[in-house]
Amino acid sequence: MDNVNLKRLAEELNLSPSTVSRALRDSHEISRETKDRVKALAEKLNFQPNPHASSLRQSKSKTIAVIIPEIQNNFFSQVMNGIEEVAHQKGYHVLIYLTHEDYAREKDILNVLHNGRVDGLMISVSNTTCDFDHLREYKDAGIPLVFFDRVCDDIDAPRITTDDVEASFKATELLLRTGCKKIVFLSMAGNLSISSRRKSGYIKALAKHGMADTGQTIECGPNDEINRQRIRELLQGGQQPDGIFAAVEKFAVNTYEVCRDLNIQIPEQLKVISFSNLTAAALFNPSLSTIVQPAYEIGREAASVLFKIVGKKTLMPNEKKVVIPSYIVERKSTSR
Amino acid sequence: MDNVNLKRLAEELNLSPSTVSRALRDSHEISRETKDRVKALAEKLNFQPNPHASSLRQSKSKTIAVIIPEIQNNFFSQVMNGIEEVAHQKGYHVLIYLTHEDYAREKDILNVLHNGRVDGLMISVSNTTCDFDHLREYKDAGIPLVFFDRVCDDIDAPRITTDDVEASFKATELLLRTGCKKIVFLSMAGNLSISSRRKSGYIKALAKHGMADTGQTIECGPNDEINRQRIRELLQGGQQPDGIFAAVEKFAVNTYEVCRDLNIQIPEQLKVISFSNLTAAALFNPSLSTIVQPAYEIGREAASVLFKIVGKKTLMPNEKKVVIPSYIVERKSTSR
Repeated sequence: MDNVNLKRLAEELNLSPSTVSRALRDSHEISRETKDRVKALAEKLNFQPNPHASSLRQSKSKTIAVIIPEIQNNFFSQVMNGIEEVAHQKGYHVLIYLTHEDYAREKDILNVLHNGRVDGLMISVSNTTCDFDHLREYKDAGIPLVFFDRVCDDIDAPRITTDDVEASFKATELLLRTGCKKIVFLSMAGNLSISSRRKSGYIKALAKHGMADTGQTIECGPNDEINRQRIRELLQGGQQPDGIFAAVEKFAVNTYEVCRDLNIQIPEQLKVISFSNLTAAALFNPSLSTIVQPAYEIGREAASVLFKIVGKKTLMPNEKKVVIPSYIVERKSTSR
Repeated sequence: MDNVNLKRLAEELNLSPSTVSRALRDSHEISRETKDRVKALAEKLNFQPNPHASSLRQSKSKTIAVIIPEIQNNFFSQVMNGIEEVAHQKGYHVLIYLTHEDYAREKDILNVLHNGRVDGLMISVSNTTCDFDHLREYKDAGIPLVFFDRVCDDIDAPRITTDDVEASFKATELLLRTGCKKIVFLSMAGNLSISSRRKSGYIKALAKHGMADTGQTIECGPNDEINRQRIRELLQGGQQPDGIFAAVEKFAVNTYEVCRDLNIQIPEQLKVISFSNLTAAALFNPSLSTIVQPAYEIGREAASVLFKIVGKKTLMPNEKKVVIPSYIVERKSTSR
């Protein structure tokens, strides 16, 4: 990958990438002294501007980038579908990058996106991302940036999400209405604000019904085997739950697998609901109740907002923070 | 999108795009007379070479393109995962394009990929693609091209596929072994060679067991409602099948839906098997027997072969036509 880039120059000079970029372009906003410093170092390090960089200011790269944790995931593949549709209509090209929930890889990816390769960037951050400087630099350098689903609360950029707290609240209330006395929340491990939002909806619903002390959260992750082990311990342990609320589809699938192994009947012995965009959830044994996120719409909206920024149009306040509601589909896994 | 491109110039001049490209680059292989003709028209039509074009010859675009029919499809999302992994290792960027099984859109996409935007191209062709000239032009212009899964037999380019005929043959024999006397094949409509390969495996197996006259094919497509209607008519008709072999996962899901509506018991009254890469097929009611394609491996291999061509390495004969076997996972939907 590119070794010497704007970011590296900026670091060595203790300047922002956007200052370095403007200095190299001879911007009138930058002092002669700074320009000389920047150019001297650029020459010394043999800095090669990205061959596409000039197209950003001239004819645009006509390319946007999408950074997502996984593509083997119904939610993200539906989001991609929405993004690609809008990009195609606009005559834009779409670069796709997968972080596999790896913060280091996310940083790597952003590192090679400097220098004008793209006109704008959409990201759903990895669940191991603990620091947002790599994203803040983009924002500071004036590159259009939009968050979707998994956002960073500290950076002032448009965000397209669903109503995670409300949806979790409703799903928890549904389980309570069907008679559950002990609901366990299977949470995503990591630092995502979306995890805490989903969990907070669950906790709020328990509190409203005076059952806050029954709450229990189990952290699950990308590894199926570890998830199944944790769920098995939970279901064989002393305080067996009668309801499972899975923060992501994968954990519901893991729950079904363990129940099959342990011969636990869903919904008679255990009710299950999950955030999921798997259309085939209706065919599960038993059919799985789901909280469906408007994935395609989130993708379309994220791309539409990004193209507005790229086109230098002013965003309305309601376009900076778009919330598209999720909806619950009740099926057999939560029937009484 | 770009209006005047190499292809348009080539058409007007009755030359190949590669000749036009070389003429514009002052190649010694092109006569002075041709160069003058090309340059005169380029000037007249105000032809703007793609700003990234020169990077192809100079420092490379470091970008490859992947064109697939859909992304909301477990097979293609797993393929993308494999491609992205190899590209990331090589320090390459990946452009993604979706055709939605639309030949016109596929042509549109290829049209804007001219002029050196990418160093190479991977494609799984749309099922409505009836003419391959848009792909042949790439090949003729010397742009590295690799087919995967859905290939074009007429173009001499590397292809990565699975053993569709053999896998279909084995799946059909499995249904016969479980006692099926009347197996219907749910085929993809369209012009894909992969459709005819899957169908031929089914027909061969029936023929081997002296049951060629029991064969029946129903064409299904992207529309769930139409598929369900056709399957409903089949299952309510005079000659009810006792086995369904679905060429793609979507048709198996449609079959399950219709069986639930009509109260037809799987596997007692109807056995079902399908090509599918849905890991959750094990959780279906009943669990679905599947022919699993090595999707991730196909993606990795396609990208690896493409990078060899981009790097001007010579391909071994066995790299030009790679076949990675599929495997059958027997579950309840085909139990006796």
